[in-house]
Amino acid sequence: MRALYFDDRLSVREVPRPKAALGEALIRVNLAGICGTDRQILKGYAGFRGVPGHEFVGEVIECDSLTWVGKRVVGEINITCGHCNWCRRGLGRHCASRAVMGIIQWQGTFAEFITLPIANLHLVPASVPDEVAVFTEPVAAACEILEQLPIAAGTRTAVIGAGRLGLLIAQVLRHAGAEVTIIGRSAAKLDLARSWRFCAVHSERDVSSNRELSPKSFSLVVEATGSPEGLDLALRLIEPRGTVVMKSTFHQPAKFDTAKLVVDEITLLGSRCGNFEKALDLLKAGVIYTQGMISKIFSLEEGVEAFKYLENPGCLKVLLATQSTI
Amino acid sequence: MRALYFDDRLSVREVPRPKAALGEALIRVNLAGICGTDRQILKGYAGFRGVPGHEFVGEVIECDSLTWVGKRVVGEINITCGHCNWCRRGLGRHCASRAVMGIIQWQGTFAEFITLPIANLHLVPASVPDEVAVFTEPVAAACEILEQLPIAAGTRTAVIGAGRLGLLIAQVLRHAGAEVTIIGRSAAKLDLARSWRFCAVHSERDVSSNRELSPKSFSLVVEATGSPEGLDLALRLIEPRGTVVMKSTFHQPAKFDTAKLVVDEITLLGSRCGNFEKALDLLKAGVIYTQGMISKIFSLEEGVEAFKYLENPGCLKVLLATQSTI
Repeated sequence: MRALYFDDRLSVREVPRPKAALGEALIRVNLAGICGTDRQILKGYAGFRGVPGHEFVGEVIECDSLTWVGKRVVGEINITCGHCNWCRRGLGRHCASRAVMGIIQWQGTFAEFITLPIANLHLVPASVPDEVAVFTEPVAAACEILEQLPIAAGTRTAVIGAGRLGLLIAQVLRHAGAEVTIIGRSAAKLDLARSWRFCAVHSERDVSSNRELSPKSFSLVVEATGSPEGLDLALRLIEPRGTVVMKSTFHQPAKFDTAKLVVDEITLLGSRCGNFEKALDLLKAGVIYTQGMISKIFSLEEGVEAFKYLENPGCLKVLLATQSTI
Repeated sequence: MRALYFDDRLSVREVPRPKAALGEALIRVNLAGICGTDRQILKGYAGFRGVPGHEFVGEVIECDSLTWVGKRVVGEINITCGHCNWCRRGLGRHCASRAVMGIIQWQGTFAEFITLPIANLHLVPASVPDEVAVFTEPVAAACEILEQLPIAAGTRTAVIGAGRLGLLIAQVLRHAGAEVTIIGRSAAKLDLARSWRFCAVHSERDVSSNRELSPKSFSLVVEATGSPEGLDLALRLIEPRGTVVMKSTFHQPAKFDTAKLVVDEITLLGSRCGNFEKALDLLKAGVIYTQGMISKIFSLEEGVEAFKYLENPGCLKVLLATQSTI
């Protein structure tokens, strides 16, 4: 089959089609989404070699559990042992011996076919088209915040970073009742946020002068910029006893003023993958705008070009239509 | 009156006796404790100039509310506006216009007399001697963790730092039901902890080889070392979804690996001053050992020497008997 492959460089090549083991499904990928973590992998994150990609929607082609065959699915990215303490607590995403699709020892979604354990699959409701369902994984990552932190109605919230993940987080938190301000750099992305009736502020032009952004004025700040400067701004905006949620995995170690954290009793909360069911519910209910977030759909053969396209400052979600070569 | 005064240097000198305003009490200080923050102030922390010190036990000498006169008291260190949102929520310690005794715009306890608002005072039970009551403020700081975080019985907990604050935190958490391991550097302090039947581990000799300290094996880690290396060790020891409580206000910005925080969904929780009532209850109940923690009691006139004495590696609490010159 054709796949986008990363060893020292990224290229489209022929690789063996994976085989579904017992309890696994072979899935034909329809659409795959490129995420910030995929770009980090190309910079060496997690030392991954192989087919990257972990966002997808596809169709089950082969499976020993026949009820799944022919079904349109999305799939959780952590492949877990199933019997450690974490797995038993329903937190398999922290299983110490886990593989992670497209990130740790499991081939990813930038390919015509993938395999996944049946336990990882979620049926996509018929009313949710592929172009929406492909957002399930990042929407689930946004929903994870709700599982970690109760959000009171009207919670004054800033989302720093108006990128792919930031815009989804802002929508999920607003739907949960938070009063959300989005802070970003790209005029186009901020305009998109405003078209969804968000308060959207330019981080370089408006932050110091904007009365909406006075220091210590938010009780929840989400850092979703992918860079350490986002954390600096987050710590400026958060009020005493507030929570800064960290969503970015950037590589440089971040420096921060721990005295500020202690004196103001700030909570810094790391947040990663989330619950797919909640995400599918939101996408089915149509309360998350995804349409304006798709910047371009490339074919799998154009995969290298798709990664280059992502470097455009205004670019949001880039998808790969993985069956276009058939 | 005599007082220990810090401007560019620390010296004992004659300063005007403070006057109690309406709603305030004039207190004769019996004993004052020196804390890590006081040493930071001598290095420039908070830009404080004046009489440092915020731990004390004393007797009310003058007060417009006569019931307080003659009473033995301890006192909360944040002097607050009383009407902002924080004050109304009972969290005056985050009041934006607060003074802090011996730290921000309020004269401290290394003196014969201090003033404090009546609202800050707590009566010391007759059964609690001065040498125990003087620990109320740091015990309250330890108790703050319990207010911020529910502790389940048997919570596997590491306290990094076997100093004044670390040893109190370890005791408070153990009393709340946690299973506490203390990690420190001073053999004498670790021996003291062992005499209280704690598991106590030397951070340089035993950490890597000690089976009790395998990576990601604690669900709660308290950083109480006063140095950024404590945070590194805390992040090594904490398990996924665990909480690292930060108690130290060190001045250098700390560097840390945010990817670890995100992937393992760690919570970093800043924690400062706490509830005096809970602390007095614990001290009255006799469940916190303080006796072995007093390294030496100096007179106020020997204050400069007392600060030098604190630099001895095995030194724990140093007290000033502020009335010794009368």
